[in-house]
Amino acid sequence: MTSGIWITLEGGDGSGKSTQAGLLAEWLEGRGRTTLRTREPGGSEVGVLIRDIVLHHRGDIAPRAEALLYAADRAHHVATVVRPALERGDVVIQDRYLDSSVAYQGAGRVLDPDEVRNLSLWAAEDALPDVTVLLDIDPSDARRRLDAADKPFDRLEAEREEFHARVREAYLQLAHAEPGRFLVVDATADPDDIAALIRARISVLL
Amino acid sequence: MTSGIWITLEGGDGSGKSTQAGLLAEWLEGRGRTTLRTREPGGSEVGVLIRDIVLHHRGDIAPRAEALLYAADRAHHVATVVRPALERGDVVIQDRYLDSSVAYQGAGRVLDPDEVRNLSLWAAEDALPDVTVLLDIDPSDARRRLDAADKPFDRLEAEREEFHARVREAYLQLAHAEPGRFLVVDATADPDDIAALIRARISVLL
Repeated sequence: MTSGIWITLEGGDGSGKSTQAGLLAEWLEGRGRTTLRTREPGGSEVGVLIRDIVLHHRGDIAPRAEALLYAADRAHHVATVVRPALERGDVVIQDRYLDSSVAYQGAGRVLDPDEVRNLSLWAAEDALPDVTVLLDIDPSDARRRLDAADKPFDRLEAEREEFHARVREAYLQLAHAEPGRFLVVDATADPDDIAALIRARISVLL
Repeated sequence: MTSGIWITLEGGDGSGKSTQAGLLAEWLEGRGRTTLRTREPGGSEVGVLIRDIVLHHRGDIAPRAEALLYAADRAHHVATVVRPALERGDVVIQDRYLDSSVAYQGAGRVLDPDEVRNLSLWAAEDALPDVTVLLDIDPSDARRRLDAADKPFDRLEAEREEFHARVREAYLQLAHAEPGRFLVVDATADPDDIAALIRARISVLL
């Protein structure tokens, strides 16, 4: 993947990914870069249909089926949205990528994290972002933020707190294993301070 | 997988899979066996949603995304429909399984057949049927049958004839590689004669 820059944002719901994506896009546009904000699951037309199954289907989905649906969304999204944007030279700012699958599906559920990661890499033909920002937050802090926002919970958000603690631990392990790709920030800090840290990390790529 | 018997039917559209599935089920029920007729994609509630995407979505689906969607359908179907039926001791008669994915996705498209097969095996936790009946037919003969039935074509049926010739060749190679699992029959023979061949193969398992 060529002249563009690919940035993914990771972290639990309530960690402030959308806020930071917006601030980063605004800053980059101000510097004359074309940005594309997107997400997984649901960052393509086919992806919207898949997202609807994995997040809103009533009734259980077999764990391997769930992992495969996320990977299908990823395959289509990378091939038809991300890769073309990077080839145009855009900056892609993406809410969630394969680290979400490893953290949520792998560590959080019953599947082998390495198998989940390999599935995603096969789906995406081994494409990895230039930078992954992990907005690290204690699950009980995130819960308080979500409660304050009074948004209805989807299926994953409704999972129990212990699950979210395992997800956080899995995220931190992923960041530890790939320090060159990850930027870990404290999601409870002031949003403007977080944005400054992210800008500093991205600046070196511009 | 335990006391049940798992039979899959493979072959191009128009090869007579539904007819043979019906005749086989009738014969087995007459011998006191409980049968379950099912299919992939779309043999479960989640599968119906996935089937709708892969067969009826307008616009292209990235090849890896398509393979992953079929695998997701398979994972959920095996875990929630096939495996419980086999554990009850039923005979499962299934229209299409992983050989379809290898023949259509692998050999027919741009993906590595071994990768497609491994994806399916991961999805299904390595579950393979006791018997796979391949209804072998020349694509132009199958085309004539479908034209006569005057059914509207779905997206895969509308693919060109050359594609179906590659699928047929891939099926025959799969059967050649696993002679113990496959029963290959000439789909242009008399349906009652085909049914008798299938019954003879299944009898030894009862």
